[in-house]
Amino acid sequence: MKLSIERGTLLKAVSQAQSVVERRNTIPILANVLIEAEGDTVNFRATDLDIEVSDKAPAQVERPGATTVSAVTLHEIVRKLPDGALVTLADDGTSGRLTVEAGRSNFNLATLPKEDFPVMASSEYASNFSAKAPVLRRLFDKSKFAISTEETRYYLNGVYMHVSTGEDGQVLRCVATDGHRLARIDADLPAGAEEMPGVIVPRKTVGELRKLLDDDDMMIAVSVSETKIRFATPNITLTSKVIDGTFPDYTRVIPQGNTRKMEVDAAEFAKAVDRVATVSSERSRAVKLSLDEDRLILSVNAPDSGAAEEELAVAYGDERLEIGFNAKYLLEIASQVDRENAVFLFNSAGDPTLMREGNDLSAVYVVMPMRV
Amino acid sequence: MKLSIERGTLLKAVSQAQSVVERRNTIPILANVLIEAEGDTVNFRATDLDIEVSDKAPAQVERPGATTVSAVTLHEIVRKLPDGALVTLADDGTSGRLTVEAGRSNFNLATLPKEDFPVMASSEYASNFSAKAPVLRRLFDKSKFAISTEETRYYLNGVYMHVSTGEDGQVLRCVATDGHRLARIDADLPAGAEEMPGVIVPRKTVGELRKLLDDDDMMIAVSVSETKIRFATPNITLTSKVIDGTFPDYTRVIPQGNTRKMEVDAAEFAKAVDRVATVSSERSRAVKLSLDEDRLILSVNAPDSGAAEEELAVAYGDERLEIGFNAKYLLEIASQVDRENAVFLFNSAGDPTLMREGNDLSAVYVVMPMRV
Repeated sequence: MKLSIERGTLLKAVSQAQSVVERRNTIPILANVLIEAEGDTVNFRATDLDIEVSDKAPAQVERPGATTVSAVTLHEIVRKLPDGALVTLADDGTSGRLTVEAGRSNFNLATLPKEDFPVMASSEYASNFSAKAPVLRRLFDKSKFAISTEETRYYLNGVYMHVSTGEDGQVLRCVATDGHRLARIDADLPAGAEEMPGVIVPRKTVGELRKLLDDDDMMIAVSVSETKIRFATPNITLTSKVIDGTFPDYTRVIPQGNTRKMEVDAAEFAKAVDRVATVSSERSRAVKLSLDEDRLILSVNAPDSGAAEEELAVAYGDERLEIGFNAKYLLEIASQVDRENAVFLFNSAGDPTLMREGNDLSAVYVVMPMRV
Repeated sequence: MKLSIERGTLLKAVSQAQSVVERRNTIPILANVLIEAEGDTVNFRATDLDIEVSDKAPAQVERPGATTVSAVTLHEIVRKLPDGALVTLADDGTSGRLTVEAGRSNFNLATLPKEDFPVMASSEYASNFSAKAPVLRRLFDKSKFAISTEETRYYLNGVYMHVSTGEDGQVLRCVATDGHRLARIDADLPAGAEEMPGVIVPRKTVGELRKLLDDDDMMIAVSVSETKIRFATPNITLTSKVIDGTFPDYTRVIPQGNTRKMEVDAAEFAKAVDRVATVSSERSRAVKLSLDEDRLILSVNAPDSGAAEEELAVAYGDERLEIGFNAKYLLEIASQVDRENAVFLFNSAGDPTLMREGNDLSAVYVVMPMRV
């Protein structure tokens, strides 16, 4: 194998690939990236056995071939090379070394045989459709905060993506919950997605996918089977196993009869929650919301360290209510609101509370109260 | 006590004070900041028993007095208050609480009696002088990287500041070393510093001092005794114990007879060292320098992972030389050079190497070689 490639192009391709590589590996080849050169492209592939990223870039291929080298080392080297450099990657197939040359720099890296690199088995995908990057971005960005980190409830360690019925017909829906809060985000159902099986996309995949979605208006090809999901741009393909489990029936958790409505500026609300929570040093900081005619008082009482109180003007016309929440949970859901006021719908102090952005029903959040 | 103060002024004063407070304290009052209001100023004082910072700010004092509250909590609260807010601090002297009010926010913090706050005993200072902030900044910034972290050699855990004789007469000199490398930085001796006893300024004090020196051209009043050092601006006073030990005779470590001179662009040199070191995953990465007529080859050989080599154009006219260094040490001394080329003076592969910036003798660095 021998090829030349511009440093910036190489860096981008290697960055995407190396990020799925786990830093600690018991299987040495999983630390490596598979480099395959053919025609006028070079392909970089990395995997942790659950996720595989494959990234294609244009290159001048002098001699086709393939090998594997440490993803982290290659990435570090390329990152440190001067901008605009032309980089040559070459192995002679016998020495077991890959040389990396750029200007007066010369590197010589240990390789492992390309035959040992685990390539993810290809699947039959039940459903193939296209979605705009911003649509996928919104679905996952607004739901991922609620993903559970409890490993024993492995079926909650991801975002449940499935087809459901919204206000105006069928939707593509992402749901995540950790039992304390829940996010349910809808988008118009893309053509071709009608038959998609519901899948739980693991947390790490959601993170890797996010990097793919940075380019603003790109179309992403999505393929889904019972066991795998694939996201692809013209150059990058991200394939991931999905979580083998059943996502619980979340619809029962979303309260239907909450009628006490409070509308508040989301940014002001978040800042006030953050301020009053300061006085408590506990990990689960409880904030009390005391509601009265168009007035909200946020308060925290931490007997050892102190107390805090802040008043906010809100729109509220129902009877008096006192209800407590974990400050962190309140902050996280309030920070999802980007366009409009936050609308909270309460029932009693013991019941789950619903939040949405203005009158938009395509993003709904639920948060459990706590005793204060 | 009751006073009002502008949020920005308060934030700055509390920031300086709270940064000396240790996050983990067995003595509760050490987590607190002492607030003293009198006349038209409020003073914030914090200590870890070795360092004391005292920061004065203008305030409208309605009722003089003093109390102590958690430095971290007060700092966090003030940080989160909106910019431009007027903050009122008040305690009634009986409830044991300090109230912090700003706009519609109201906090109530636990206090500890001001009498329990340990105020550092005042000292007789043997020497008092003034130095410009940039002069002190240079002395400590260029030496602190060489401070030892080995706690058993406690007398190396700081910067040795003393009066010495340089090329053109007496100088104020800062020296730090960890046995592997050494930095010796000189400045013109300020008037009044002639009789200053040599003191070892602890690492943490150097860090805290650095925050004082941010304002560009300010004059800093320095006072030194055998046991303490004090740095003061009109508002802030930093008092610190010095390390009770004898700094070793560093002059023996600085080679006098090194004649093999190499001159190199410091930035290019640092980048090349950083690049070739990438292939080694060991903690102490050894870089080999191979010198020949106006040519330097940097190389690293890590049998497991690979090898790297890079050539640099340098000015060198002596005989061939091969010498090895810890890559991290080379990078750190090369990054001290800000104005000119780095000038290295070698003797043999087993002897300490000297580095300076161009022909400037007021900053001299020594680094020990390692076998490669």
